[in-house]
Amino acid sequence: GYTEKVMDHFMHPRNVGAVADPDGVGQVGNPVCGDLMEVSIKVEKDVITDIKFKTFGCGSAIATASMVTELAKGKTLDEAEKISRQDVADELDGLPPRKMHCSNLAADALHKAIEDYRKKT
Amino acid sequence: GYTEKVMDHFMHPRNVGAVADPDGVGQVGNPVCGDLMEVSIKVEKDVITDIKFKTFGCGSAIATASMVTELAKGKTLDEAEKISRQDVADELDGLPPRKMHCSNLAADALHKAIEDYRKKT
Ligand code: FES
Repeated sequence: GYTEKVMDHFMHPRNVGAVADPDGVGQVGNPVCGDLMEVSIKVEKDVITDIKFKTFGCGSAIATASMVTELAKGKTLDEAEKISRQDVADELDGLPPRKMHCSNLAADALHKAIEDYRKKT
Repeated sequence: GYTEKVMDHFMHPRNVGAVADPDGVGQVGNPVCGDLMEVSIKVEKDVITDIKFKTFGCGSAIATASMVTELAKGKTLDEAEKISRQDVADELDGLPPRKMHCSNLAADALHKAIEDYRKKT
């Protein structure tokens, strides 16, 4: 079973797409199914002012990415870097264990996008 | 890469949900990722008059299910039974080989829904 919050973020995902002229982009692949997750960010004075995700992955991947983007928006890079896979699962009131591969994609992609931004600046 | 048709059916899936008071329901699980696919049908005089799908699966699962429901609607049960996994992939101008597990779910669930209807009548 999926929680109400997971279903809500799956049916009405927030921040789908790619930000225009991104300051950082992170991409990761799911080793189990091969699906990709991409997170792009806009950064102003060390704050994530905009963030979007793109994936062809499953409902768990979509729901966690939607939640990750909500959590990261408006945060400083240092704060956003600390958003863990577990934080995201907790915010969604839990996820099925066998979908962890899918639900880790978004936090990993966010961290890579921040890394990408830091490398460039 | 995904074809334009796959992207279209992923972004704008047709016939999402469940038909009211279904005459047949078929459910199958994806052995790789554990995701479920459900297809429900309304049947009148051996013709599928309405059909909907529900899944928490990935983009390939969503796109193929959307296409399968479009192909099956208005067909007789005998015709719909012959819709193969390959027919669906062909109609979408192809699917990545490693996503075949996901893209077979919809045709299988349709066949199960027809089986379910035949058992009941
Ligand atoms: S099954 Fe591929 S991302 Fe979940």
